[in-house]
Amino acid sequence: MLVEHSVQEMLNELASAAPTPGGGSAAALAGALAAGLVSMVCNLTVGKRRYRSVEADMRSILGQAESCRERLTWLIQRDMEVYSTVMAAYRLPSTSSEERLSRQLAWQAALQEAADVPLQIAECCQNVVQLATDAARMGNTWAVSDAGAAASLALAGAQAASLSIEVNVRSMEDGAAAEAFRSRIERILAEVGRLAHETHAIVEERMEA
Amino acid sequence: MLVEHSVQEMLNELASAAPTPGGGSAAALAGALAAGLVSMVCNLTVGKRRYRSVEADMRSILGQAESCRERLTWLIQRDMEVYSTVMAAYRLPSTSSEERLSRQLAWQAALQEAADVPLQIAECCQNVVQLATDAARMGNTWAVSDAGAAASLALAGAQAASLSIEVNVRSMEDGAAAEAFRSRIERILAEVGRLAHETHAIVEERMEA
Repeated sequence: MLVEHSVQEMLNELASAAPTPGGGSAAALAGALAAGLVSMVCNLTVGKRRYRSVEADMRSILGQAESCRERLTWLIQRDMEVYSTVMAAYRLPSTSSEERLSRQLAWQAALQEAADVPLQIAECCQNVVQLATDAARMGNTWAVSDAGAAASLALAGAQAASLSIEVNVRSMEDGAAAEAFRSRIERILAEVGRLAHETHAIVEERMEA
Repeated sequence: MLVEHSVQEMLNELASAAPTPGGGSAAALAGALAAGLVSMVCNLTVGKRRYRSVEADMRSILGQAESCRERLTWLIQRDMEVYSTVMAAYRLPSTSSEERLSRQLAWQAALQEAADVPLQIAECCQNVVQLATDAARMGNTWAVSDAGAAASLALAGAQAASLSIEVNVRSMEDGAAAEAFRSRIERILAEVGRLAHETHAIVEERMEA
């Protein structure tokens, strides 16, 4: 598991010529970092007398952020697996016409999965940026800048995931499936962008207060 | 050293109530991930016959990206150290007027350092996004989406760093120093945003080709 490697090793593996980990895993890690920062803001808020009125909300945000973090941590690894499946299908023998057909079927099936994983990463990033907005609004002002950092990282995660989706979608023969992926990620990106902008505005306002 | 911890441990420490690692370290890590992705694009390009004409350029980009990655990896730890120095100064005794003065001096000096480290992180992110633009233009089309992911992550790193700068700058008594930090980071953010946009346009164009 990549997340069991040290941060330094993970960075070295990312930088190497090995195709995995790549942009999809980096996207999931960016999302996990964002979720971690939201949790930190919550952990620096709950139990504080001054923030008693938002205690229940912040506990709820914390629980959701930790679920997102767990899921995104799993998706770091999952993206590497589905990419390897695409590569394995691509390398299947294709000398006979039967081999070519079965290679094509395996490849197309692998592409669907390899586009679905970064879509899940982007969906999680959307959840995280929503939680960052809430944490920025209600959390400890002393840590509000970390909610802003979370929003930036969740947006980067969604953008990087969208590129991983497109890489796989452009080789799909099923035009309707390709279109469904593209319209779904476009809506997610628009919403994540809007929420990141909103979070940054709240952070700026509360840092000045 | 945080980078010697596993990715999972680092995420747990980020999410905890401990104030470090926080947004500044997450910013440096986002920048290091971006630099790693640029290096990956270079490593998937150099030595390939088809990209012989850009071999020297890509080798130069690789060397610079690896330098940026090393520096950003160091800044992950450095941000934790300067934050701890600010906290230590803040907690100095302040019962006598002499103690209050020496506490104030120590705190103000620590704030300068604690703003300077995320400024260095943002400067490195600017270098990385410039390298991502070049890698997107010249690198292996097969990996061009990773240059786009690098641009998104470098932008997130610079944005998160800017919030860390602001947190420290707003407590500075030296108005001229505060203004210098703010005008410097504003120019960096504008340039990083412009370059990230340019990189995404190049990536989109080359993915369609």
